[in-house]
Amino acid sequence: MKEQEIRRKEEILEPRGKLGVLIPGIGGAVSTTFIAGVELVRRGLGEPVGSLTQLGTIRLGKRYEYRTPRIKDFVPLADINDLVFAGWDIYDANLYEAAQFAKVLQKDHIEPIKDFLASITPMPAVFDRRFVRNLDGNHVKKGKNLRDLVEQLKEDIRNFQKTQGVDRCVMIWCGSTEVYMKPEDVHSSLPAFLEALEKSDERIAPSMLYALAALELNIPFVNGAPNLTVDIPALIELAKKNKVPIAGKDFKTGQTLMKTIIAPGLKARLLGLEGWYSTNILGNRDGLVLDDKDSFKTKEESKLSVLDYILQPQLYPTLYKNYYHKVTINYYPPRGDNKEGWDCIDIFGWLGYPMQIKIDFQCRDSILAAPLVLDLVLFMDLAQRANMNGIQEWLSFYFKSPMHKENLYPEHDLFIQLMKLKNTLRYLMKEEQITHFGLDYYME
Amino acid sequence: MKEQEIRRKEEILEPRGKLGVLIPGIGGAVSTTFIAGVELVRRGLGEPVGSLTQLGTIRLGKRYEYRTPRIKDFVPLADINDLVFAGWDIYDANLYEAAQFAKVLQKDHIEPIKDFLASITPMPAVFDRRFVRNLDGNHVKKGKNLRDLVEQLKEDIRNFQKTQGVDRCVMIWCGSTEVYMKPEDVHSSLPAFLEALEKSDERIAPSMLYALAALELNIPFVNGAPNLTVDIPALIELAKKNKVPIAGKDFKTGQTLMKTIIAPGLKARLLGLEGWYSTNILGNRDGLVLDDKDSFKTKEESKLSVLDYILQPQLYPTLYKNYYHKVTINYYPPRGDNKEGWDCIDIFGWLGYPMQIKIDFQCRDSILAAPLVLDLVLFMDLAQRANMNGIQEWLSFYFKSPMHKENLYPEHDLFIQLMKLKNTLRYLMKEEQITHFGLDYYME
Amino acid sequence: MKEQEIRRKEEILEPRGKLGVLIPGIGGAVSTTFIAGVELVRRGLGEPVGSLTQLGTIRLGKRYEYRTPRIKDFVPLADINDLVFAGWDIYDANLYEAAQFAKVLQKDHIEPIKDFLASITPMPAVFDRRFVRNLDGNHVKKGKNLRDLVEQLKEDIRNFQKTQGVDRCVMIWCGSTEVYMKPEDVHSSLPAFLEALEKSDERIAPSMLYALAALELNIPFVNGAPNLTVDIPALIELAKKNKVPIAGKDFKTGQTLMKTIIAPGLKARLLGLEGWYSTNILGNRDGLVLDDKDSFKTKEESKLSVLDYILQPQLYPTLYKNYYHKVTINYYPPRGDNKEGWDCIDIFGWLGYPMQIKIDFQCRDSILAAPLVLDLVLFMDLAQRANMNGIQEWLSFYFKSPMHKENLYPEHDLFIQLMKLKNTLRYLMKEEQITHFGLDYYME
Amino acid sequence: MKEQEIRRKEEILEPRGKLGVLIPGIGGAVSTTFIAGVELVRRGLGEPVGSLTQLGTIRLGKRYEYRTPRIKDFVPLADINDLVFAGWDIYDANLYEAAQFAKVLQKDHIEPIKDFLASITPMPAVFDRRFVRNLDGNHVKKGKNLRDLVEQLKEDIRNFQKTQGVDRCVMIWCGSTEVYMKPEDVHSSLPAFLEALEKSDERIAPSMLYALAALELNIPFVNGAPNLTVDIPALIELAKKNKVPIAGKDFKTGQTLMKTIIAPGLKARLLGLEGWYSTNILGNRDGLVLDDKDSFKTKEESKLSVLDYILQPQLYPTLYKNYYHKVTINYYPPRGDNKEGWDCIDIFGWLGYPMQIKIDFQCRDSILAAPLVLDLVLFMDLAQRANMNGIQEWLSFYFKSPMHKENLYPEHDLFIQLMKLKNTLRYLMKEEQITHFGLDYYME
Repeated sequence: MKEQEIRRKEEILEPRGKLGVLIPGIGGAVSTTFIAGVELVRRGLGEPVGSLTQLGTIRLGKRYEYRTPRIKDFVPLADINDLVFAGWDIYDANLYEAAQFAKVLQKDHIEPIKDFLASITPMPAVFDRRFVRNLDGNHVKKGKNLRDLVEQLKEDIRNFQKTQGVDRCVMIWCGSTEVYMKPEDVHSSLPAFLEALEKSDERIAPSMLYALAALELNIPFVNGAPNLTVDIPALIELAKKNKVPIAGKDFKTGQTLMKTIIAPGLKARLLGLEGWYSTNILGNRDGLVLDDKDSFKTKEESKLSVLDYILQPQLYPTLYKNYYHKVTINYYPPRGDNKEGWDCIDIFGWLGYPMQIKIDFQCRDSILAAPLVLDLVLFMDLAQRANMNGIQEWLSFYFKSPMHKENLYPEHDLFIQLMKLKNTLRYLMKEEQITHFGLDYYME
Repeated sequence: MKEQEIRRKEEILEPRGKLGVLIPGIGGAVSTTFIAGVELVRRGLGEPVGSLTQLGTIRLGKRYEYRTPRIKDFVPLADINDLVFAGWDIYDANLYEAAQFAKVLQKDHIEPIKDFLASITPMPAVFDRRFVRNLDGNHVKKGKNLRDLVEQLKEDIRNFQKTQGVDRCVMIWCGSTEVYMKPEDVHSSLPAFLEALEKSDERIAPSMLYALAALELNIPFVNGAPNLTVDIPALIELAKKNKVPIAGKDFKTGQTLMKTIIAPGLKARLLGLEGWYSTNILGNRDGLVLDDKDSFKTKEESKLSVLDYILQPQLYPTLYKNYYHKVTINYYPPRGDNKEGWDCIDIFGWLGYPMQIKIDFQCRDSILAAPLVLDLVLFMDLAQRANMNGIQEWLSFYFKSPMHKENLYPEHDLFIQLMKLKNTLRYLMKEEQITHFGLDYYME
Repeated sequence: MKEQEIRRKEEILEPRGKLGVLIPGIGGAVSTTFIAGVELVRRGLGEPVGSLTQLGTIRLGKRYEYRTPRIKDFVPLADINDLVFAGWDIYDANLYEAAQFAKVLQKDHIEPIKDFLASITPMPAVFDRRFVRNLDGNHVKKGKNLRDLVEQLKEDIRNFQKTQGVDRCVMIWCGSTEVYMKPEDVHSSLPAFLEALEKSDERIAPSMLYALAALELNIPFVNGAPNLTVDIPALIELAKKNKVPIAGKDFKTGQTLMKTIIAPGLKARLLGLEGWYSTNILGNRDGLVLDDKDSFKTKEESKLSVLDYILQPQLYPTLYKNYYHKVTINYYPPRGDNKEGWDCIDIFGWLGYPMQIKIDFQCRDSILAAPLVLDLVLFMDLAQRANMNGIQEWLSFYFKSPMHKENLYPEHDLFIQLMKLKNTLRYLMKEEQITHFGLDYYME
Repeated sequence: MKEQEIRRKEEILEPRGKLGVLIPGIGGAVSTTFIAGVELVRRGLGEPVGSLTQLGTIRLGKRYEYRTPRIKDFVPLADINDLVFAGWDIYDANLYEAAQFAKVLQKDHIEPIKDFLASITPMPAVFDRRFVRNLDGNHVKKGKNLRDLVEQLKEDIRNFQKTQGVDRCVMIWCGSTEVYMKPEDVHSSLPAFLEALEKSDERIAPSMLYALAALELNIPFVNGAPNLTVDIPALIELAKKNKVPIAGKDFKTGQTLMKTIIAPGLKARLLGLEGWYSTNILGNRDGLVLDDKDSFKTKEESKLSVLDYILQPQLYPTLYKNYYHKVTINYYPPRGDNKEGWDCIDIFGWLGYPMQIKIDFQCRDSILAAPLVLDLVLFMDLAQRANMNGIQEWLSFYFKSPMHKENLYPEHDLFIQLMKLKNTLRYLMKEEQITHFGLDYYME
């Protein structure tokens, strides 16, 4: 018996009515850039650059057919005009104030939508400083235990749904990176987890409470940070049980994005790797949080694993067995939200001759992340309407540490990830899979 | 009726006996690095890094099957121990002298195989300085007309085959870039071409004479430079008529290789492009030849077209309609054969915010090209034994300007090219095509 | 007998009244950035960063005395509040429009001084398209011959002096680079030059007419571009005869500035140079003009000579005899007025071991040039009041190709140039020369 | 009364006989590169690139006199043929083995002088792992207390002098960086220090024992590392008392060298500084030692102070008061002894507009350091023969943290340092000081 009966094509439920977007960390740079951007696009004041759902196309059929509809015309996605936003934050600033503080968007992009932004005010957050040491906020919930806090979150959500007339929602974690944790017994099954919850076990992180609240209300959950959160057996079990899609972890932006572009290129050509040194400088709140070693460790794990999965040293020992990989992040205030990554890559070719690649990527963290938030919200909503539940591996494209089924290795190559995503859409719409085999054109 | 009846799996003819590699430009840096490298690998003194045929693997079946044989164990390729080499050059230095002159390989790699290299001496070349202005050599053939020169080349080949006991051959152009030419009427059909040949028409370049000689002897022909050569209707017609595979143009190494890695990455994420400035510095003979404007023009065309095909401005006008693309090459003797490319890429993201990528690629031209020569020789020989004839689009992976069927656009994305190549191999061996659709793992 | 009797300390004439600044090319990016900046500084809305006269200090006496007054408190300079501006341009846009077109300053810096900028309108320019081929303007003077044009310029100046109540002036060329010219017989003496002028000789460039007008009216003249202009025997003769200071050529900004910082450093440590490759990308009008080969040649000469003078290959043949120096400039519109220079420097050390330096300088042309204009205007006015006439070598600090006395080599090392400038100021104010000899501190 | 009666010109004692070079850390990369290089130069097999004493010239008199003798022809330096070497190390490998281990010099440079290198074997070192945690060697002295160890070192020196027929010596510390220490009371005066020595006080580092041994034997001492060593009041007192020259600290190579070239350039032009991020990657033993936090702290202090001294924020608050300066060092084995420094410099100009400089310096640590060792040995020997004693500030040119008289700030600007050095040489030889004032040429 199949685990899930995916609805395809006309069976997919239609995206009627409003879609609520629930964001823990709504006052941060990524969230405000995302929300302001959506509103600017709706008013025709900006382009949703970087968004596959809004600008992407998909090739169908043969190369000479020139059938390449926009993705949003091909699959039944929610319209961005139907999005409504709510969220939680440890600071009580409304989104107009928060967007100014973030210093990502210019005045010219904030002022025209001042009223809209000012109308969104964060709800008090669930927060525990043991998990994010370099931040401190006072807009936080109090509860007699962890279960109580979960119930408060669920109450927040139900109020939002009622007042805004929303019934479909997606929750997406845009909060800070929590300290490094390994999955333990309390995370290993749903009963164990729920029992630990009752006891307010200290191994349950705040982000897990948000995920639990979402899943208990049948709301898809996405994790944009590298912390475990929904990536524990207990919550995966719950997602399947409640037939809710989940996805994560850690938005793939900046230097890691570049790494998953370059590394597949080196491997395609079977160029060997001797070392890869990556340094990052950034000056925003994210940089501050990652100045704490334990938060950095969570991030580092997420960043380091990428290369091994792409390069497959077990298959290519001559080329990739012994490379030295080092990632550092430095808080550097002059950079602000503009992140800069410098990569120094030592490769070798024919007969072992060494060559070098240096990459200086002067990017913008939130500008790269915002369209991912939009795409993930829309695709997760689609997944739910298509009755796809549990881990959504086809969305690996968006993550540094893609969640994956046990006993199945994750796919980190950006190009394979995109192929996977698009062939999934083709499957949903009953179109032929694309293989890029093209010999047939020459056999007619 | 099908144009070609491809032989698959056990029907493919076996690679028995010696395979002759015929190289116009055999004394150049690429050729000597290739040939010396093959010999070093045969003696266990070096690794064929960069070669898909030697080190590459291919995944078969499901992800959890872990079936990933080496390509050379999967498809019936010639063994590198069966390769024998011959070629033409405008300088009469033997390959031991030529390899030293090229300054690519170190003493430690040349001395151990001195006897082998010294035993290979170029045959006199067909050369016309109107086509390569910055070079001059005196080891050249004289002929009463162009047809006479072609016949001399064919006689050279027959002698080689006889003395070395070779009957299967592949010819691969590793000579310098010829001046820019547009296809004209004399190139438009086989009869027109042959007639022009008799009249020694000056629009027939030396490289075309080599290609003609090869095709008339049923020898596959590969073009590693950007000149037209075999990419004209006349010779494509001959290739099909004689059932010979052909491939080209312009080995994809260095900066353009990097471009076809990065550009698909930007497009995958739908990041816009405002400008791409590429400068190259190199100090070898190639740099000297490209200091001539007309030779550079041939190269420039080859380098510039890459981006448009990958980015598809017609599908993404918001993102790619107006970018400014500039490529320069500078002769810089301190660099020698080590090429350096610097790319300055101006991109934009969400709402149009600008970001920058700078790439400094300190590479080695011949080191990157040598494994491509090896792969192409082996794959072209395979193609012939599998009865694949005419343009081999599945080998686009190796070229800056992949040859393609009329009315079919070429594929420049390195990752799609690799997919195409591997799915072609799977087809030849009757294995299932890989689509990277992975939803099935979650539906069991 | 001394050529000039320099007035020192209290003998220097006081800077009373208004100082007129006359600018050929007043509508360009450099001029508008300079003028707007002066006004913003006057109103307390900006800092004159980069200006030695405004922010610089000068150490006097012993190290332990801590006597380091601001330069403007030490020497009697004109106050920036006393500057008034006029100039010529081939476009008739007023400076408010011109500043917007230049796209150097942000709205926030232009709007508050809109009235001031809009009140300055260029006078029609002397222009000849044979000398600047990629530009074309219609706001130009007509004259029956060259002398007539000079007289029109002088009339413009007299009108300005009268209407604004100015008698002291400085003229500073901020126009585009003219095509390459070598000094010829018509430039070799004042009589020859004046005779050629009468005949409207085509070897007399427009910039020379401006210089002539200035010198005939006893107005100091500075040349910010690399064209010959005042650097010909004829006009040097006139400057001395009329006791007027002159200075030039070519504002030292951007990549060449960086070069005159790095090269002295390499030479200080006697590190050898194998090659220096410099590429520039810029998108402003300057970039467009330099896309013309003959204008570029003028610039190239100015840029290339720098290294030889600093490195002195005649003294250090082992280190600097054979280096390869290449400079390219590319028009790249995405960069706008923001210039980017990339330098690739191949050096060698102990026993000849090679090392490399790569420098990416993301600068702003006009932002670097504007403070030089201010300093030069104020120092040239000081020079005239101190009766210093002819070539002002002590201002070499500001130029890529410093003018110098015949038979005396120019000084290109930025640090020696600064020493020269400051010791000149100390001399003028009768302070002790600084030698940086410090042994005396240890001998007391 | 003067503290020292410096001997000038013909009074300077002649450099007769052999000059012994005593090196703690003689088996390291810097020492072996230095010693092998000196021998190669002596045999005409290499050039002493980077050495001021061997290749440098000095301008004397007027610019038009063209009097620029080589420094070694101008001042009476020891001839490199008279140098003999000895030293201590914690590993007992002879210098032929040590040079191979260091992987700085190629086979071609080591083999021809194999016998010479193999003939030099380190004496057992004074070592204490508390001061250098990441190293461990077993070729170390045992002593009943610290005084005993000092006496053993002195005995080593006397033996060396006797067996080699040497009486003039210079000792130069080329050992690893010791952990961070602040000067304490035990270092504050000679009596206190000697008393602490008797008690084997743990605040006395091994490097101090070497310095003490040298000074007690009237041997000049140079410190090439950032540890305090001779830079404590006690040993400065001893140096003056015994009339011995001392110098330090920390050879200025690599990234800091670059910093003291660039920073004076920015300051010369009064460009503001917002931030300076420096990262270093290196893979040699030095990198390993600096992976220990406390050793890194010593280095960091030395590296960070440079900017403040050059930029003088107290004089230029608008420009330099608030810059953010960050230096990191990362152990990266693929780099070996080749060090790579990447600097990201955020500057601002006219009206505060931001600009950026990125510098990638692919250097070689020991290749840059070796000529400094040679120069320092020769200049220190000269200093002693000229009766210059105590701190040699005129040699600041060679150090990251130049030692200086109390109440006198150090000079970090490379160009001022060079001026200081050369004017000191001119003083010693009774030549006129150079000021670069050049107005006189224009007043004749």
